[in-house]
Amino acid sequence: MYYLGIDLGGTNIAAGIVDKNFSMVAKGSVPTGREREYTDIIRDMADFSKRLITDAGLTTSDIEYIGIGSPGVCDRENGILLYANNIKFNNVPMAKEMQKYISLPVYLDNDANCAALGESMAGAAKDVSDSVTVTLGTGIGGGIVINRRIFSGFNGMAGEIGHTLLIADGELCTCGKKGCWEAYASATALIRQTRAAAEENPGSEINRLVDGNLDLINAKTAFDAMRLGDDTGTRVVEQYIRYLAEGIANIIVMLQPEKVVIGGGISKEGETLLKPLRKAVKERLYYRKDDVPQAELVAAELGNDAGIIGAAMLGMQGGF
Amino acid sequence: MYYLGIDLGGTNIAAGIVDKNFSMVAKGSVPTGREREYTDIIRDMADFSKRLITDAGLTTSDIEYIGIGSPGVCDRENGILLYANNIKFNNVPMAKEMQKYISLPVYLDNDANCAALGESMAGAAKDVSDSVTVTLGTGIGGGIVINRRIFSGFNGMAGEIGHTLLIADGELCTCGKKGCWEAYASATALIRQTRAAAEENPGSEINRLVDGNLDLINAKTAFDAMRLGDDTGTRVVEQYIRYLAEGIANIIVMLQPEKVVIGGGISKEGETLLKPLRKAVKERLYYRKDDVPQAELVAAELGNDAGIIGAAMLGMQGGF
Repeated sequence: MYYLGIDLGGTNIAAGIVDKNFSMVAKGSVPTGREREYTDIIRDMADFSKRLITDAGLTTSDIEYIGIGSPGVCDRENGILLYANNIKFNNVPMAKEMQKYISLPVYLDNDANCAALGESMAGAAKDVSDSVTVTLGTGIGGGIVINRRIFSGFNGMAGEIGHTLLIADGELCTCGKKGCWEAYASATALIRQTRAAAEENPGSEINRLVDGNLDLINAKTAFDAMRLGDDTGTRVVEQYIRYLAEGIANIIVMLQPEKVVIGGGISKEGETLLKPLRKAVKERLYYRKDDVPQAELVAAELGNDAGIIGAAMLGMQGGF
Repeated sequence: MYYLGIDLGGTNIAAGIVDKNFSMVAKGSVPTGREREYTDIIRDMADFSKRLITDAGLTTSDIEYIGIGSPGVCDRENGILLYANNIKFNNVPMAKEMQKYISLPVYLDNDANCAALGESMAGAAKDVSDSVTVTLGTGIGGGIVINRRIFSGFNGMAGEIGHTLLIADGELCTCGKKGCWEAYASATALIRQTRAAAEENPGSEINRLVDGNLDLINAKTAFDAMRLGDDTGTRVVEQYIRYLAEGIANIIVMLQPEKVVIGGGISKEGETLLKPLRKAVKERLYYRKDDVPQAELVAAELGNDAGIIGAAMLGMQGGF
């Protein structure tokens, strides 16, 4: 039996067919066209799903169900996307709409939750039952997995850890609240911090790396400057790691998962990021002694596939 | 069948015998004598338990087990208190030591977790399966209940929500970390804030209420001054409610429990506290619209009995 997972993003609809061993037997993506009506977007999702099934040499009857990971707030029970920010879906009956084109069960959950489930079932957290996955991107996505199931609270919205507090009355977050962790520790925030440092220190390696065009700064630039021994780049990275550590310490103090998985492009820095981050997190824990096992901090393993694989696993939480 | 719960505190050992309907059939307390050896304290716990059993007209065979709620970090599986702050217990085999005197199964968990379990089974959250109980006292105790079981993470230390962050690099907390919620929103913090305001505004009602002796300020003083129309008292309460709201919003954003229960002496302010608090919390949520059900904020119902009742329920989590 196979499972079809769709990761609906603001830019692309990515999808894949996964087998029982979490191997992707077919995979691809098409543009979302986010400004369009939801009916058009969902029709494309269905058409692309059918194409993937055919490309894999399968038929619909080989597929157990379709799982969809979507941005925003989902009513999982009824397969309704209540609200999303970066695609303009409000109260959209995703499952029902998909089923107009493909007659398969459809499961729906938040994309960050799907990524967390993917890492839990087949990635960096596959050896533990409780984990939290933090995805550092435009924002900060968070997914809590308890007993290998997504934990999403009584209303489906748990795990929005990007919007826990870093500094009361601090920087304005895109959610409208002030001082959210996301406003300091997302990739977007790192880029903003790198840019501000470059403006203040025009002689830094950051400026040289982008030939003075600060619009070219990305989430890697400060790390690159640091690798060149640049003081400004080093300061930006060190401050960013402190911001990151505060939010991760919050997760651990509250939930004590066995693993915290860091995903998103920045996680590709690997130990350059993780080593100082582990130290900074430990300094911020409530209980800092080593006589109790502490959460392990690891990099995500599945990259962008996490969302697809997790979506494909939505119907089998708790085991086959 | 009956269940014996012990709430081990820095000042008193409180204990009670609870029946299947969560009614307390016997209750009492003896001083802890916290500076003594743990062997002496635990012997007193056992002696007092036996006395309660006799006073209730029961025998040991009527009691299914003993549950102990203790400050600090517990190894629940092995009944060991790993570390406590306000009693000097380090790596103490609580269960084994108790069983030297009474031959009954002994369960051990953190006291704030027990209070949360008590409110969940028999108090303010008895109608929902997921709740978080926040006890505002010397510090802030927190307990997470999921599916009517204490959730304490893979190492038993989850739910230390007093030590989530309010302000990065903010006020020094008793745990050694800076900016913890507890440093701003515990009863101790409110007393400190009230005192500082009184020092700055010697003409305020706060000063009059304590006849100028600021050592007499307690967690009720600012509320009393506010009730008298005092500006200084009102400002202190309003700021305190903002601090409280930030941490409660953090809990909701991360866990989305169906109820958040506020316990501790301050919760006796009832709607004077809860009404503005609900408004302040709502402003701080990630998703602020009303089309999704939101956590309800309520006052604790069991008072100091919550810890005893919760301890007495430790052996039957998940139901009878």
